[in-house]
Amino acid sequence: MAQDAPAGAALDAAPLAPDFAPHPPGPPLAALTVEGDWLSAAWSDGLSRRFYAPWLRENAVQAGVDPVTRERGLDLSLMAPPRLQGAEEASGVVTLSWAGEASPTRHLLGWLRDAAEGRGLAQAGLPAQTPWDAAAMPEPISFDGPAALSDDAVLQDWLVATRRYGLARLRGLGGDHGTVQRVAERVGVVRSSSFGFLFDVESKPDPDSAAYTSDALTGHTDLPTREMQPGLQLLHCRENGCTDGFSTMADGFAIADALREEEPETFEALTTLPWVFTNRHRSFDYRQSRPIVALGPDGAVREVAYSNALRAEPDMEEGDVPRAYAAMRRMMQLAASSRFLCRYPFAPGDLVIFDNRRILHGRDRFTPQTGTRRLQGCYLDTDELLSRLRVLHRNGRA
Amino acid sequence: MAQDAPAGAALDAAPLAPDFAPHPPGPPLAALTVEGDWLSAAWSDGLSRRFYAPWLRENAVQAGVDPVTRERGLDLSLMAPPRLQGAEEASGVVTLSWAGEASPTRHLLGWLRDAAEGRGLAQAGLPAQTPWDAAAMPEPISFDGPAALSDDAVLQDWLVATRRYGLARLRGLGGDHGTVQRVAERVGVVRSSSFGFLFDVESKPDPDSAAYTSDALTGHTDLPTREMQPGLQLLHCRENGCTDGFSTMADGFAIADALREEEPETFEALTTLPWVFTNRHRSFDYRQSRPIVALGPDGAVREVAYSNALRAEPDMEEGDVPRAYAAMRRMMQLAASSRFLCRYPFAPGDLVIFDNRRILHGRDRFTPQTGTRRLQGCYLDTDELLSRLRVLHRNGRA
Repeated sequence: MAQDAPAGAALDAAPLAPDFAPHPPGPPLAALTVEGDWLSAAWSDGLSRRFYAPWLRENAVQAGVDPVTRERGLDLSLMAPPRLQGAEEASGVVTLSWAGEASPTRHLLGWLRDAAEGRGLAQAGLPAQTPWDAAAMPEPISFDGPAALSDDAVLQDWLVATRRYGLARLRGLGGDHGTVQRVAERVGVVRSSSFGFLFDVESKPDPDSAAYTSDALTGHTDLPTREMQPGLQLLHCRENGCTDGFSTMADGFAIADALREEEPETFEALTTLPWVFTNRHRSFDYRQSRPIVALGPDGAVREVAYSNALRAEPDMEEGDVPRAYAAMRRMMQLAASSRFLCRYPFAPGDLVIFDNRRILHGRDRFTPQTGTRRLQGCYLDTDELLSRLRVLHRNGRA
Repeated sequence: MAQDAPAGAALDAAPLAPDFAPHPPGPPLAALTVEGDWLSAAWSDGLSRRFYAPWLRENAVQAGVDPVTRERGLDLSLMAPPRLQGAEEASGVVTLSWAGEASPTRHLLGWLRDAAEGRGLAQAGLPAQTPWDAAAMPEPISFDGPAALSDDAVLQDWLVATRRYGLARLRGLGGDHGTVQRVAERVGVVRSSSFGFLFDVESKPDPDSAAYTSDALTGHTDLPTREMQPGLQLLHCRENGCTDGFSTMADGFAIADALREEEPETFEALTTLPWVFTNRHRSFDYRQSRPIVALGPDGAVREVAYSNALRAEPDMEEGDVPRAYAAMRRMMQLAASSRFLCRYPFAPGDLVIFDNRRILHGRDRFTPQTGTRRLQGCYLDTDELLSRLRVLHRNGRA
């Protein structure tokens, strides 16, 4: 397995993989042959794969990748293409020789095996996303809050559920200011916004958002006014004396999937007709034009973006406007329906995390006279969740 | 013109536009007629436009939009569609009556005119992006740094140049720690990352990036490992006693446009074949799979993402790998060529801002023995630039 080496260590002590992931040796090789610009490897369990020689050359530690930063120093655009001449393997190390180069490069066989299995790809090891309706999710799946702060296994379980369902809850966290930041930083770097690094959700004078009133909020995503909506929102209930003001969550992916099947014209309008979403404010003017439902290159639903409060101009041909309104109306009716709506009280010490590009979140109107309701929240980008999931997965494999 | 009103003010004192933008009255109306679900407006200068009645109803202040937050409170998905019955205009105010509603809604005629002109759309008022080569940009276009901090007109000129060319410089800012943050916050909210809220670019022990060595850096974008690369990077030169280590900038849009015309096969490979970019680190594992050049829905080049240091696996069919390498190599050769490379010394007190999703930035190797070289940087998202440009444009129009 690759070990870290201090800068300037001799070659023999240098790491043999260009990254910090563990690379268990895997099964023994059955064959290793040079075929022109390709290295062909076959393992005893039947897996085989061809590796492009320039890719091997530029991923060699020290000869291609700096052993300290693990960033590539070699730049193939500045040199003649490397030509592979020979390959051999011994004791889990693959040694490659190159035309015109005095020294061979050395590579960990386990790293090659992991590449053959696709473990270097972006989606490797990430949980699948599972759509849900109200029957499947009567309330958020819950985990022990203090344990998630101290125990990586609990953190991993909570984040796997977050990725899978787009919604998961920690309980028992008390009511301290800044708890939401401590939890968020267990995952990664907080994303700030014009609403602050952390935001306090409570009734306030001269509010710049309906969130800061006691009004009901119908299902929405936050910051559809930005090119990339925050990937995750964390909301911590610090105090709640109100008996009303229940939280609401609906899975936008499940609703869009249902519409694709049941009402294809509605789905088509939602995925193709863009609206401008705007934060109307004295000192900023964020705007983004986007359809309510965005599809990925594979045609699957990738993102939902909607806020009735922030929806401004239909950015489409005049003739499309009536069906855009009808489709919006239909989707939001489903989002508020008993078929899809998860509705539950928000108890002090609870913290919910949800995928802000998938889940439509809201709340019932509350009655401030019955008690104090104080939430604190912040955002994280999806990058942070996926990075933390990969590291927890990597560490579990080590 | 719309005036702000305190919460609970009487209708007569309420604003008549759902946003904070100025809405000059514009030319007089020539005709205003109700046609089913549409309001048809024609102005004396020949402009005419039809407005969908539900859109007017939900943008009425107080009846649809909260006069304090300027967010919409009315939710059309919870009610029967509003039916427009009558329309009249007097003294720059349009009054609309609705079936089954006792009170009419009132709208500023200037707001309707601005909507007819498309001023509510996301791209309204933004400068066009102009590609450049080395001949057109021998060094960054420069503005007075202290003036940009205090004078909105200078700030606007600097940010218009930033949007237009993806690169602009402030001079005369001195060398204080945190200056880059003061400048960034004139634009908007700083984007933090795993490299910090601000980052200090200087040689350091145990570096986690080649930026923190004295090595040459070939042209690259920062954080192609993230789903959305930071839109802007700001770099402030606090101190520089090195006579080498020149800065380099190349316009990735111009290079991609040239390849589209001159080498369509290279362009096709760059825009369709994705690579995984990875930050290899002990405690995080950011990965993103993307082509080097991304096109927008209109087919225009929208984003460039490349770092030789962070490029990991080709995420494509085996047969595509050789042409992906050839295309990468070709683009990076152009990025380093005298045709496209802007190369200049980085003087103390200078601060450059550049579009990190367009410009490939780098530096020559420097010799730390000849002097101290200390830069400080941070990121902003494109949203912040566009919001600030819109507000400056709005204020200039008021």
